[in-house]
Amino acid sequence: MSPKITTELLKQLRQVMKNPKYVQEPVQAYIVPSGDAHQSEYIAPCDCRRAFISGFSGSAGTAIVTEQHAAMWTDGRYFLQAAHQMDNNWTLMKMGLKDTPSQEDWLVSVLPEGSKVGVDPVIIPTDQWKRMSKALRSAGHDLVPVKENLIDAIWTDCPQRPCKPLITLDLSYTGVSWRDKIVALRSKMAERKVMWFVVTALDEVAWLFNLRGSDVEYNPVFFAYAVIGMNTIRLFIDGGRMMDPAVREHLQLDSTLEPEFKIQVMPYGSILSELQAIGAGLSPKEKVWLSDKASYALTEAIPKAYRYLTLYTPICIAKAVKNASETEGMRRAHIKDAVALCELFNWLEKEVPKGTVTEIIAANKAEEFRSQQKDFVELSFATISSTGPNGAIIHYKPVPETNRTLSVNEIYLLDSGAQYKDGTTDVTRTMHFGTPSAYEKECFTYVLKGHIAVSAAIFPNGTKGHLLDSFARSALWDCGLDYLHGTGHGVGSFLNVHEGPCGITYKTFADEPLEAGMIVSDEPGYYEDGSFGIRIENVVLVIPAETKYNFKNRGSLTFEPLTLVPIQTKMIDINLLTEKECNWVDEYHQKCREVIGAELERQGRHEALRWLLRETEPLVRAQ
Amino acid sequence: MSPKITTELLKQLRQVMKNPKYVQEPVQAYIVPSGDAHQSEYIAPCDCRRAFISGFSGSAGTAIVTEQHAAMWTDGRYFLQAAHQMDNNWTLMKMGLKDTPSQEDWLVSVLPEGSKVGVDPVIIPTDQWKRMSKALRSAGHDLVPVKENLIDAIWTDCPQRPCKPLITLDLSYTGVSWRDKIVALRSKMAERKVMWFVVTALDEVAWLFNLRGSDVEYNPVFFAYAVIGMNTIRLFIDGGRMMDPAVREHLQLDSTLEPEFKIQVMPYGSILSELQAIGAGLSPKEKVWLSDKASYALTEAIPKAYRYLTLYTPICIAKAVKNASETEGMRRAHIKDAVALCELFNWLEKEVPKGTVTEIIAANKAEEFRSQQKDFVELSFATISSTGPNGAIIHYKPVPETNRTLSVNEIYLLDSGAQYKDGTTDVTRTMHFGTPSAYEKECFTYVLKGHIAVSAAIFPNGTKGHLLDSFARSALWDCGLDYLHGTGHGVGSFLNVHEGPCGITYKTFADEPLEAGMIVSDEPGYYEDGSFGIRIENVVLVIPAETKYNFKNRGSLTFEPLTLVPIQTKMIDINLLTEKECNWVDEYHQKCREVIGAELERQGRHEALRWLLRETEPLVRAQ
Repeated sequence: MSPKITTELLKQLRQVMKNPKYVQEPVQAYIVPSGDAHQSEYIAPCDCRRAFISGFSGSAGTAIVTEQHAAMWTDGRYFLQAAHQMDNNWTLMKMGLKDTPSQEDWLVSVLPEGSKVGVDPVIIPTDQWKRMSKALRSAGHDLVPVKENLIDAIWTDCPQRPCKPLITLDLSYTGVSWRDKIVALRSKMAERKVMWFVVTALDEVAWLFNLRGSDVEYNPVFFAYAVIGMNTIRLFIDGGRMMDPAVREHLQLDSTLEPEFKIQVMPYGSILSELQAIGAGLSPKEKVWLSDKASYALTEAIPKAYRYLTLYTPICIAKAVKNASETEGMRRAHIKDAVALCELFNWLEKEVPKGTVTEIIAANKAEEFRSQQKDFVELSFATISSTGPNGAIIHYKPVPETNRTLSVNEIYLLDSGAQYKDGTTDVTRTMHFGTPSAYEKECFTYVLKGHIAVSAAIFPNGTKGHLLDSFARSALWDCGLDYLHGTGHGVGSFLNVHEGPCGITYKTFADEPLEAGMIVSDEPGYYEDGSFGIRIENVVLVIPAETKYNFKNRGSLTFEPLTLVPIQTKMIDINLLTEKECNWVDEYHQKCREVIGAELERQGRHEALRWLLRETEPLVRAQ
Repeated sequence: MSPKITTELLKQLRQVMKNPKYVQEPVQAYIVPSGDAHQSEYIAPCDCRRAFISGFSGSAGTAIVTEQHAAMWTDGRYFLQAAHQMDNNWTLMKMGLKDTPSQEDWLVSVLPEGSKVGVDPVIIPTDQWKRMSKALRSAGHDLVPVKENLIDAIWTDCPQRPCKPLITLDLSYTGVSWRDKIVALRSKMAERKVMWFVVTALDEVAWLFNLRGSDVEYNPVFFAYAVIGMNTIRLFIDGGRMMDPAVREHLQLDSTLEPEFKIQVMPYGSILSELQAIGAGLSPKEKVWLSDKASYALTEAIPKAYRYLTLYTPICIAKAVKNASETEGMRRAHIKDAVALCELFNWLEKEVPKGTVTEIIAANKAEEFRSQQKDFVELSFATISSTGPNGAIIHYKPVPETNRTLSVNEIYLLDSGAQYKDGTTDVTRTMHFGTPSAYEKECFTYVLKGHIAVSAAIFPNGTKGHLLDSFARSALWDCGLDYLHGTGHGVGSFLNVHEGPCGITYKTFADEPLEAGMIVSDEPGYYEDGSFGIRIENVVLVIPAETKYNFKNRGSLTFEPLTLVPIQTKMIDINLLTEKECNWVDEYHQKCREVIGAELERQGRHEALRWLLRETEPLVRAQ
């Protein structure tokens, strides 16, 4: 991996930073964030502006370029990669280290007094704008919106924004029509006394209209905005895809409809001017609801007194609670996914001893088996296929430079998932194809105890997921072990594999309470640097729990695993499990046997079925 | 309890609200908060302004008076009391209920456009001012500081501010001299590049100077402020108490000292003008550090650009970590406290069956036994002595109207504590003097399991206490039970029984990480409305834990109980305990026996000793 030479590019950028064609006044610094205009987790090539200017292609990082300096802030996952990909023009700012200045502090330390710091207001989310702007202002500088993106100005061969065909989802998948979703949204708007709601996150647009796309990798979304009024619906989306008869039919574009359900289709790029027109025409008490992750440009289009900003939108909260059709779809998707993984692990068991299976080959094989399943669309994230020391790199993705061969002497960790038309999967299994050491089994068993502690937890309705995080760690903590990531995230229904507003992580306090129908992951781990990684991840559904005393009718909740893939019993030190935990494992495996066994049988996958039956034998209790 | 008639008072208040003698411009609303200028938990009679104007004397509540309305916001603990104590002039705003408007929303709904809302800037904390001011401004109103307190203006017989003698604490109690505390504080100031630190919380002033007072009930503090510069110390305190030779000697007021340790004593009332003088003389980069709970008046004295506000002050954080002398003092205090409670419970066991012991008599008896112990100063909070249904009222305090007689048919809950010169105690025990029902035992045992789960928890250094809160609930949750309060709070060392910045509660995310030397309470409970209350509370010390793998040298922590009072085994359903939990109880009781037994022996309290020995017999395991 040789670094990208950026001398010429930086020279060009510094020129446009003072070129009146692009900036009203020269800016002394220009911020290039990671994200796109929708704060997407996965972005399209045309939005990889930070990678273009710096060479650094990791998923997280912010570049700031001044007259004299070019600096890149990124976190521990990417220190090595950024150092390799960037040339000497760049200073790497290692976030999380004690001596690394924040972007604001660094700017204040290098800028001449009264400087202007530019940023594309279409890219920067409102909450970040506010924070940065306040910090700069208190030091005598100004954060200024630069309308034309300065990277685009010098990016002569910038790829086009993707505009792939759409998938329509009927009621059997979504359970609720887009019309009913609009009705429910408008009732939330009425509750909060807002007249307009601006949909800016791509998965929220997709969910609202029961449409899916493939404009970016892994997330089945498409570039669009929507503005929902109490009597109007505007969808901002480009291209011929609105000519597709299936889409026109789905959205009833050519039908005679009550005016409040008539969708006005407008160009993607016209959102700002349309919103400005709405902003200009508001009468007192007509508020506009936006996410505080909406771009500053959109928020700015609405006069301050009329803005209603929230951390979570009503769509985000509604989307998190899956209805019966979505839940059933998720179940089907997880059954198919388990079939693919049974095939994979059976295949690995035979092939690994030959010494010919690399991490990349294993990842490709997993994709191959998944793609054989009905309604498979694509992967839901980049497969983490890692063996031995690579398993300890939490966000590892095998590349030719790091690709390691699986062996009977090392632990193998596979964290993978797929998008099916009926649901999204995300599962991690940690396997040993030889004989694990006592220490490896001990660590695996603590992780398993943590996994079970969350999965079997019973808790009152209204409990926030972050309050369950410590349950997953308790067994590890008892021995002085821990893992440095959260325990779980929300999972979409044929949508983003990571979604808010719920999860199971000590890192936030602002998650929404768990309720029946929400779907999250349960994925504690343990990582021994330079040696191995262990993670056991199921996707679980929040369901009502029966309890002895149903405290003040508040009701109780627990989890039901949707993921049904055997947990390797060879890795378990049964002496460390309680009887209750042993029973949990046996009952889980019994369910895998019944549900996945039947499907393997149906699909005629007899060898994988034999593997499943072998791997789901009850635990042998110590005498 | 008949309501206070406030018609005349409200008329007078509304007059001064537009009297140019008191207000620059008329105010259309006036806010009367609960607190004093230091945001103390317990306030002096002269600071009970809200109670004076409304009649409502509960510990929490905010009054707002407009031309037309008078409204009182308070929480569920006080709905009944407030309704009884206030006359028809007042509207009770029940906080926590869905339909109750916030103070801001209510003000906006009742005020004419462009109104001025007045508040005493000396009383309102800065963070509250900011929130309220922003909300009012966005609705076109203004929050304005009214220099003269308008309640004081009409409170003709307002009591004097207390000015009681001070107690000096020598090194054997504090472990660190006030000089060394100043040195440490200045080094924190240097780290944050601030030149001044303003001490506004009364317990912080007391801790810093190793002084105690008795100006308010329960908290051994005195009215004072301090301003610490890098080379100066100013103590704002009134009265003859600075004439006390012991205090002069302690503070070295008459010695020749390096100038940076010379304490300038100034009148309590001069803090504002002195701070304004400091504020006016600041040169660039000279920041002033204040708590964001400091009054708005003090914060305002410092120009905005020079303010450095934090949630927790360096004193708050240093104070929380007890040194060896403080820890030893706390141990001694808890031994004496346990002696008093053994005497009490032995006495109750004999007297309760006679039917002559009321909640108030029991509370007084507890105080009597405590006051017999060395260095007893006062109680650390109002004793919660409650039997039967009164036990389910979490913040109950017996008064003649509610006073109930203890009996052999009801559960008795005693939550009490004291201030000794060497430490502060806070302990809850739940007892049955007859035969508890199976259900009562079951609930008690779940609470005990939660208590043990926290007390025996092992967790990595740097863990925040709120992450342990769910451990205390897990056994209750499994059966569909819960309790609606946090599990623990920080405890001062001969200081406030409730102190920050650590605790064990799901209610905050902003607590500071636990570290060895911190002291918190562990007090899960269960409350059956109309029937009984259960709580088991120990004060526990955070200590280093030995673990098998000391994860990346991060180190592990656990708790050591300082409270050593038997937990009534009669209330335990042993079948619900694990072997590990049984061992915990037995080891705890063994320690009570050894430590408290020796002290009872030494004090010649033989009957109480026999009671202790009986109550600390090992649990009888099921066969």
